[in-house]
Amino acid sequence: MEYVNDLKWEKGMSIKELVSAYGQLGFQSIELAKASQTIVKMKKASAKVFLTFTSNMTTSGLRGFFAQLVKLKMADAIVTTVGSIEEDIMKAKGEKFAIGNFRSDDIALHEQGVNRVGNIFITNESYAKFENLVIPMLEKLLAKQKRWPVSEMLREIGLLLDDEESILYQAAKNNIPIFCPAITDGAFGFHLFIFQQKHPEFIVDVVADFKNILLCTSQDDIKGLIALGGSVSKHHAILASLLNGGLDYAVYMTTARESSGSMSGATTNEAKSWGKVKDDSDAVTVIGDVTITFPLAMIAALEELAKAGVVKQ
Amino acid sequence: MEYVNDLKWEKGMSIKELVSAYGQLGFQSIELAKASQTIVKMKKASAKVFLTFTSNMTTSGLRGFFAQLVKLKMADAIVTTVGSIEEDIMKAKGEKFAIGNFRSDDIALHEQGVNRVGNIFITNESYAKFENLVIPMLEKLLAKQKRWPVSEMLREIGLLLDDEESILYQAAKNNIPIFCPAITDGAFGFHLFIFQQKHPEFIVDVVADFKNILLCTSQDDIKGLIALGGSVSKHHAILASLLNGGLDYAVYMTTARESSGSMSGATTNEAKSWGKVKDDSDAVTVIGDVTITFPLAMIAALEELAKAGVVKQ
Amino acid sequence: MEYVNDLKWEKGMSIKELVSAYGQLGFQSIELAKASQTIVKMKKASAKVFLTFTSNMTTSGLRGFFAQLVKLKMADAIVTTVGSIEEDIMKAKGEKFAIGNFRSDDIALHEQGVNRVGNIFITNESYAKFENLVIPMLEKLLAKQKRWPVSEMLREIGLLLDDEESILYQAAKNNIPIFCPAITDGAFGFHLFIFQQKHPEFIVDVVADFKNILLCTSQDDIKGLIALGGSVSKHHAILASLLNGGLDYAVYMTTARESSGSMSGATTNEAKSWGKVKDDSDAVTVIGDVTITFPLAMIAALEELAKAGVVKQ
Amino acid sequence: MEYVNDLKWEKGMSIKELVSAYGQLGFQSIELAKASQTIVKMKKASAKVFLTFTSNMTTSGLRGFFAQLVKLKMADAIVTTVGSIEEDIMKAKGEKFAIGNFRSDDIALHEQGVNRVGNIFITNESYAKFENLVIPMLEKLLAKQKRWPVSEMLREIGLLLDDEESILYQAAKNNIPIFCPAITDGAFGFHLFIFQQKHPEFIVDVVADFKNILLCTSQDDIKGLIALGGSVSKHHAILASLLNGGLDYAVYMTTARESSGSMSGATTNEAKSWGKVKDDSDAVTVIGDVTITFPLAMIAALEELAKAGVVKQ
Repeated sequence: MEYVNDLKWEKGMSIKELVSAYGQLGFQSIELAKASQTIVKMKKASAKVFLTFTSNMTTSGLRGFFAQLVKLKMADAIVTTVGSIEEDIMKAKGEKFAIGNFRSDDIALHEQGVNRVGNIFITNESYAKFENLVIPMLEKLLAKQKRWPVSEMLREIGLLLDDEESILYQAAKNNIPIFCPAITDGAFGFHLFIFQQKHPEFIVDVVADFKNILLCTSQDDIKGLIALGGSVSKHHAILASLLNGGLDYAVYMTTARESSGSMSGATTNEAKSWGKVKDDSDAVTVIGDVTITFPLAMIAALEELAKAGVVKQ
Repeated sequence: MEYVNDLKWEKGMSIKELVSAYGQLGFQSIELAKASQTIVKMKKASAKVFLTFTSNMTTSGLRGFFAQLVKLKMADAIVTTVGSIEEDIMKAKGEKFAIGNFRSDDIALHEQGVNRVGNIFITNESYAKFENLVIPMLEKLLAKQKRWPVSEMLREIGLLLDDEESILYQAAKNNIPIFCPAITDGAFGFHLFIFQQKHPEFIVDVVADFKNILLCTSQDDIKGLIALGGSVSKHHAILASLLNGGLDYAVYMTTARESSGSMSGATTNEAKSWGKVKDDSDAVTVIGDVTITFPLAMIAALEELAKAGVVKQ
Repeated sequence: MEYVNDLKWEKGMSIKELVSAYGQLGFQSIELAKASQTIVKMKKASAKVFLTFTSNMTTSGLRGFFAQLVKLKMADAIVTTVGSIEEDIMKAKGEKFAIGNFRSDDIALHEQGVNRVGNIFITNESYAKFENLVIPMLEKLLAKQKRWPVSEMLREIGLLLDDEESILYQAAKNNIPIFCPAITDGAFGFHLFIFQQKHPEFIVDVVADFKNILLCTSQDDIKGLIALGGSVSKHHAILASLLNGGLDYAVYMTTARESSGSMSGATTNEAKSWGKVKDDSDAVTVIGDVTITFPLAMIAALEELAKAGVVKQ
Repeated sequence: MEYVNDLKWEKGMSIKELVSAYGQLGFQSIELAKASQTIVKMKKASAKVFLTFTSNMTTSGLRGFFAQLVKLKMADAIVTTVGSIEEDIMKAKGEKFAIGNFRSDDIALHEQGVNRVGNIFITNESYAKFENLVIPMLEKLLAKQKRWPVSEMLREIGLLLDDEESILYQAAKNNIPIFCPAITDGAFGFHLFIFQQKHPEFIVDVVADFKNILLCTSQDDIKGLIALGGSVSKHHAILASLLNGGLDYAVYMTTARESSGSMSGATTNEAKSWGKVKDDSDAVTVIGDVTITFPLAMIAALEELAKAGVVKQ
């Protein structure tokens, strides 16, 4: 039996020491420390790791962190929503998002051509520039082949970018697939539609990509999941894992709650009833904003994995 | 200026009277009453109405209510996630979901072949039967044409069902399109993949369906949205509306909060910065479990619309 | 085993019919229906019932509903926070609170002398008038005796009011004690302090009131609790019940979650570990805004109790 | 204008560097970084600082951290609930709380004499020992005087403890008052009641303590607040500050939301309408579990204040 232990600040305390103290602190801090340890365990067990996140996290500065994690081989597959694709490309081309305020005057923002995502601002200009980037990319794709499974299309686009902090670029360079089941649900979907109007032979094949996510792990692989937020991205990785026998390690980090039966709020406990997470797996759900909880848990894990030689910075 | 008014129970009080009292009660009850009024207004203004919901709501008994709303012409287009499609079909074929408990022993459930969604149980058997239903449906589709936009495929499937309480059936019968941008993110996606392995010429065209959702309303239409929960279903309807000039009426009902910048938690205020919701629109966000809030707001609206002759039961 | 049942609107549907349908609908609606039934059961079992709520609910129009419930003998003891006392008195003396907006300009409001509680506004004037009311009341109290247990003081104040919709008035008239353990935590506390400066012999005896709450039920009584929101008011009723052997019936309605270990978010399950709620009790936790969930659950219960002759309107 | 900046892990990264990166990361991490800076500013401005927390935080290992903060003179007054007093004394006398699980079998726990607070376990034995400690303490108090303002009583008790990690001990030793407006709302209240039965002349004077909290700051002082969680503890510090002209610096850290108008969820924005927080103050609300957010924000502040010589470890 472990006991609650009083936290004490020591000058110069490291992140790893703090997360370690969290393990005996209380409530969600205990769960966060478990999440960090679960990440360490899945990597030490050489699990195939799914990393999933929603587009608001790519809007945030987690975007470069995700790219770094791909570079460090902390993920074997990524699942996200199309906003992530769009904003990763915008940022790769130099667009910057401003820090704003949750209680802005939204009508005034609209008049200024500023779009709000919580406390982050994206200008209309960023979207306009994105439009100019996409069409030439799609032309290059069509020149190669007519029918594109989503992850293969995203890999080609990643190779066209040249930004070390881009998720798409690092994923392409490191042969990590990015799955995006709802590829049309954003500005990118609109541009695909416009492009297909001119080139009806151009096909985005979402069904073929199901094969890709299914085959990127197997029944025999040890499998892990780090699911940040909910949505289709979380569910898609779980579904693919379930079809391959279920997860051995699962970390869910979310603000959503189980009380309304949503996928976003579904816990690792609920997942066990489905066989999504194996009965004897290491599984933990951390409630809280991912921009706070994930860097803490992951950096503490990276420090430990670096020390153990599993990760090389 | 309106004032808070003390609630008083009168024996035999109707739902409409209660929701009306909510308008002067406090906190989220005031917002719920506004939501109900906004639904009345959008219908009286002959707005084209998007109704969006996530699959857990179809797991619940809201499924038959959604079908009834389609029948009553309360929605002109539906957007949902693929779990809704699967469970609507299961229920149309007689499967029943049991009422369970949030704090079940999930490992024991797994051993019994029972899958938990919050406090609702679905058996493995229901999924197995679903599998047997889908393949013949896909064969019929392929016999007609090779390339299927999602909503057109769902319409065909709806016509194969024969259940007055089925969403797919009522939508097909009443010519209401059902959009499902992440069509592969569920058991249905797996069956599509198996089918495509045998019939590589079978294509699910998500890009073509973008045209369908875009053209189901126009710049000139008055447009309304009732978004239940978050996810791709909420975002997709907002995106389509934005591209057609923004919404005139918007009701968001969700448990998600704006504090983490997620789409699910984004408010109607945030939407104004994007032009998703017009500056002068009637727009309201109600925080709470949709299984409680939506029937209340909608039934009060239906009673008023029935009285005004806009809705005929 | 009970099954999920599709909801269907029937014109003129009553509140009772809706709450009954909630019992087979899903997620929190199922819990709400259980809460309503638990209220029916506790009354039919002639349980002694604690009703607890926080001051924001008295700010809302639930205030008159609470008064009505006292009049209908639905509660045998009340526990609340001091804001409830203050605002019940203000309203009894004719003050009105305006319906505002969650996203107001708070600096502008401050300049106008308007104080915001969520989407409700209270003017400085209402507080100023309150001040003028309190001192004469305290003088009357002191003329009677020097040392006042809180609930006895509140009973005397209640008798000085003359408003059918006042909680204090109805409680005093019906001999229902109102407990308020943190009696100094509000404007009333400040006035008590000013008064005690002039009259040091005036004592508010919180310890003596512990006896009152302890003796208002006994080990032998069947005991029920309806706890709305969290805070000291919820905990105090639970504590008193625990010392008398635990609750037989418990309904918690709150927006707070268990994930951070707070009293407000503590569930009826957690309460069982303490013996606060008996192992075999009827106990249910409903997550949601009380201004929506409580009237629904309670009105459905009142209709049933009225039909059974337990409640007379 | 500040911009979102991609997070990058550097081996050996310090807590201060991480919190600094949070300032440009996104959503609640930005608010957390602001909270940390606001703490730095209030200390550099020599503000009188209120630190408030609820008892679940004392149940957790934050208890020793709070004691350390008192020792480091980071707080000038504390407000908390009575559970904090009880558990601080238990821990000072050697009781240990075990780390448990949110989804425990609560009936089984009850049979084992184990009480659950989220994922922390407290045994009945710890409470029984507490009882034996309290009565002799009260006897010592009564020998000194008959009428005790709460904070003066708690100071005397603190002097009887001898544990460097005790909040009561450090507060007494460093002349920091601890206010606890609902002093009877716990096991301690029960023991006070038993004691008063034998010694009716023993009086706990909550009204006199209002003077103490009012006079521990003045209109002229620069005033700051760090409110962890909600409840009476948060409100009481705000009330005292309001009566002295309002706060210049305010940090609220909570899981509660503003949507239901509760005190716990009330934001620093809402506080401005009341003048609780001055219009031009530095004020920030951070949503999240305090066991995660507070150590991060506070340790980063301590590191900066130590470097600046304001805090000496």
